[in-house]
Amino acid sequence: MDELTFERRDTSASPASDSQPLYRQLADHYRRAIGNGVLRAGDRMPSMRAFMQRHGVSLATATESYRVLERVALIEARPRSGYFVRAPLAALPAVAEPDPALLPGSAQFVGIHATISALVSKFQRYPQALNLGGTTASPDLYPTEALRQATLRALRREPTLLTAAGPDFGDPALRAVIARRVLESGIEIGADEVIMTHGGIEAVNLALRAVTQPGDTVAVESPCFFGLLQVLESLGLRALEIPASPSTGLAIDALSFALQHHPDIKAVVVVPNLQNPLGSVMPDAHKASLVELCTRAGVALIEDDPYRELVDGEPAPKSLKAWDTNGTVIHCTSFNKTLAPGMRIGWINGGRWHPRVGMLKFAQSRHNERLAQVVLAGFLETGAYARHLRRLRDSLRLQRERMAAAITVAFPEGTRFTSPRGGQCFWVELPAALSSAALFDAALDDGLRIMPGTVFSNTGRFDHFIRLSCPSTDLELLDDAVRRLGSLARRMLERGDAHTDVHADTHAAKR
Amino acid sequence: MDELTFERRDTSASPASDSQPLYRQLADHYRRAIGNGVLRAGDRMPSMRAFMQRHGVSLATATESYRVLERVALIEARPRSGYFVRAPLAALPAVAEPDPALLPGSAQFVGIHATISALVSKFQRYPQALNLGGTTASPDLYPTEALRQATLRALRREPTLLTAAGPDFGDPALRAVIARRVLESGIEIGADEVIMTHGGIEAVNLALRAVTQPGDTVAVESPCFFGLLQVLESLGLRALEIPASPSTGLAIDALSFALQHHPDIKAVVVVPNLQNPLGSVMPDAHKASLVELCTRAGVALIEDDPYRELVDGEPAPKSLKAWDTNGTVIHCTSFNKTLAPGMRIGWINGGRWHPRVGMLKFAQSRHNERLAQVVLAGFLETGAYARHLRRLRDSLRLQRERMAAAITVAFPEGTRFTSPRGGQCFWVELPAALSSAALFDAALDDGLRIMPGTVFSNTGRFDHFIRLSCPSTDLELLDDAVRRLGSLARRMLERGDAHTDVHADTHAAKR
Repeated sequence: MDELTFERRDTSASPASDSQPLYRQLADHYRRAIGNGVLRAGDRMPSMRAFMQRHGVSLATATESYRVLERVALIEARPRSGYFVRAPLAALPAVAEPDPALLPGSAQFVGIHATISALVSKFQRYPQALNLGGTTASPDLYPTEALRQATLRALRREPTLLTAAGPDFGDPALRAVIARRVLESGIEIGADEVIMTHGGIEAVNLALRAVTQPGDTVAVESPCFFGLLQVLESLGLRALEIPASPSTGLAIDALSFALQHHPDIKAVVVVPNLQNPLGSVMPDAHKASLVELCTRAGVALIEDDPYRELVDGEPAPKSLKAWDTNGTVIHCTSFNKTLAPGMRIGWINGGRWHPRVGMLKFAQSRHNERLAQVVLAGFLETGAYARHLRRLRDSLRLQRERMAAAITVAFPEGTRFTSPRGGQCFWVELPAALSSAALFDAALDDGLRIMPGTVFSNTGRFDHFIRLSCPSTDLELLDDAVRRLGSLARRMLERGDAHTDVHADTHAAKR
Repeated sequence: MDELTFERRDTSASPASDSQPLYRQLADHYRRAIGNGVLRAGDRMPSMRAFMQRHGVSLATATESYRVLERVALIEARPRSGYFVRAPLAALPAVAEPDPALLPGSAQFVGIHATISALVSKFQRYPQALNLGGTTASPDLYPTEALRQATLRALRREPTLLTAAGPDFGDPALRAVIARRVLESGIEIGADEVIMTHGGIEAVNLALRAVTQPGDTVAVESPCFFGLLQVLESLGLRALEIPASPSTGLAIDALSFALQHHPDIKAVVVVPNLQNPLGSVMPDAHKASLVELCTRAGVALIEDDPYRELVDGEPAPKSLKAWDTNGTVIHCTSFNKTLAPGMRIGWINGGRWHPRVGMLKFAQSRHNERLAQVVLAGFLETGAYARHLRRLRDSLRLQRERMAAAITVAFPEGTRFTSPRGGQCFWVELPAALSSAALFDAALDDGLRIMPGTVFSNTGRFDHFIRLSCPSTDLELLDDAVRRLGSLARRMLERGDAHTDVHADTHAAKR
């Protein structure tokens, strides 16, 4: 089959893609056709002219659609012949679902800090390393100039923003606009039920402090964002790790089992949308069950939801809080990942512990600096935030697609990885013989920073995983980084030094 | 004696006043003469011409000197006769030193939050009330325009300040300039020994979290800043209140006794310079003894030092940390009171617990927003900060002098109050029959917010004290507020309703 014919209606009817520009909808359409095997390697793509006629689009749209497909390595141009579907990528399987027989073990005091400190001191010796380990997008994807202008305007309108003390719990205008905006994610709260915090991490700290005492047990997802494990450690709490699925997140059955057998669980912490590091998005039915389960058990459900608006498509998925009827859910989120990593603005709704959360916030750090809050309130009031999010998601999707192709080609056989529906992180399972700690050392020596799986659990279960992110809009740079990382991994496997610190070795190789 | 003659040398020789403008030095000179009784009520002051000749100054300087003396109610103009020393103010005694027989009682869990919440909900019903209860100076005393311009410059130079994530523990340039500046207060630390925090209160939280576990005992000054009592309550710590002197601060002997009899004391928290609410400045010898005592006892000494640079005169007194040789002192401070209440910038040096403080800060709220830090670093690098501090101290001194005169005239007999050497707060002991809680209610109803002594101790010992501040550069406004407050107090004493809630009563009187 040389070409495909499409019904015009087919292209425009997909409800999920209505918010996408036309070139993107068309590119998606062909991507699905390639993914489904309707178009196969070596098939010729429609000529530009045919494409324009069939879809009733301009040359610019047609060109842009092919450019997208070309950038994600699905098609290639052959001189004087047109575009062809590329040879299929080696089919790397997805990360496995957790073993249903894997039941939560015993709760443990966390001892992750020493491991993280060791990583950090190594980072600091390589300040120029490309950071493939983070969750913050490339600075050029954030609206730097718009926020700068908004800051200048705010200071013109209210020159004492820096010198007058702000109101407790945050800027009233910002709290009001947040309360209005979260209606869309199914959350019904008043402005006074929003407390501004220093990023999402302070919100999670306050939530845990509100509902636990040192020595208590907290159920967390496994693998789990290492920052949460650090918070538990710093508060003297025990972590009980509950298996999580790369596609649907926390295993509700496993949590239910844990709640029956561990009556000392005081809270459950969940990242429902784009779980970190799995990238899973919990289906609505799971969200409803989870809230119901915690409500029945009388256990606080702490929802850490900073990535919700990075999920592909519109509307974004709902928050757990949308199913909360009696204040069981403490909702924590931030604008660090979606809008402005430098502004450190998060917020919390404390559910039925809201007054206690307010007391703790006041005692811990008073109100936030007001300038950034005023800037943010103005930005959220306009359509600028929604437009920015669309651009950010589009770019991250392109980066992920390119990175996925690169990993498939470059990494050794036996590698598996997730295909998240948003954000910029992959959870990569290396061949079992390869230690992520050893790869971390070798990569750093080669100018690449990755996040080893060792810090995402207290159990050692993920020591051959890495969290790998696509932190740049420069796709060639991503290709090159993944190529280098993949060949390091292959070499380590071949040489059998995959489980040792390869520092000395790599230095020797350079000489 | 109608006039005084001065040696010219006498005026200019005072080493302490060299940093003061000439008119201020001359006004101080006459103030001392009045204070010493060299000039008495009814004495005629030198004529302008005589003043100019004697001191070799311009008419502007002479006029300004008399204006200062007139504003603090030491002299008055009589039509066509010149200036005269005013009738002496009723001599209100200073607040008494603590009874040396008063030994620390038992450590208690703090239960101050409910009281403070009740105050706050009352405040919120009177948003327009003049705040005579705060520690933040009038916004016009902070360098609003200079900081605004500095912010614009910083954003021009580095547009991604809001959108790029900042470095852990704070902006390196700011940490370096702070490390250089604190040499002056006797502290020798490197830039990496400075961790930026969200205001001084986060610093104190981190310090306490680094050295205590819930249930531990912490020795505090009595009376004690209520914010600290809230922090202890929120962390589940017990407070052991150690008497403090209105002139020299914490009673070292009482602490020594407590350390012998309470082996469970894990930390001592002290505000060495301009103690809140007493306004005391601890003498150097006491500072040295205190550090030695805690070092010997192996107990962390947490120094909360946000007011140091508000002490009259230069150089400012030293910090406790200046006497620390083995990391016993955890130094906490902020720029909230001295430079910019809206910027929420504080910092901490954790002494020998510094790495643990760093871990806790990272887990609790990550790094601070960077923009304000870059602005502050630039401001500190120039002479602008020192000039600003001089102006701020001068204005606060004028406000305190005027307020002291007003309290002396307006408050009922039996009132005593402190004469702090800086800042803006008085600690006022009302006649024992007068409840500060009742006066608080009546004042709020009259549009004035004061801070009742009930929140400065767990013991009830200060229920007839208030903390009263002079929050405005409008001296007439201060006069009027104190006059109204004084007459409320007098009426309550006369009517004998001093210990009841006078809400209903005052409403009735208005009708």
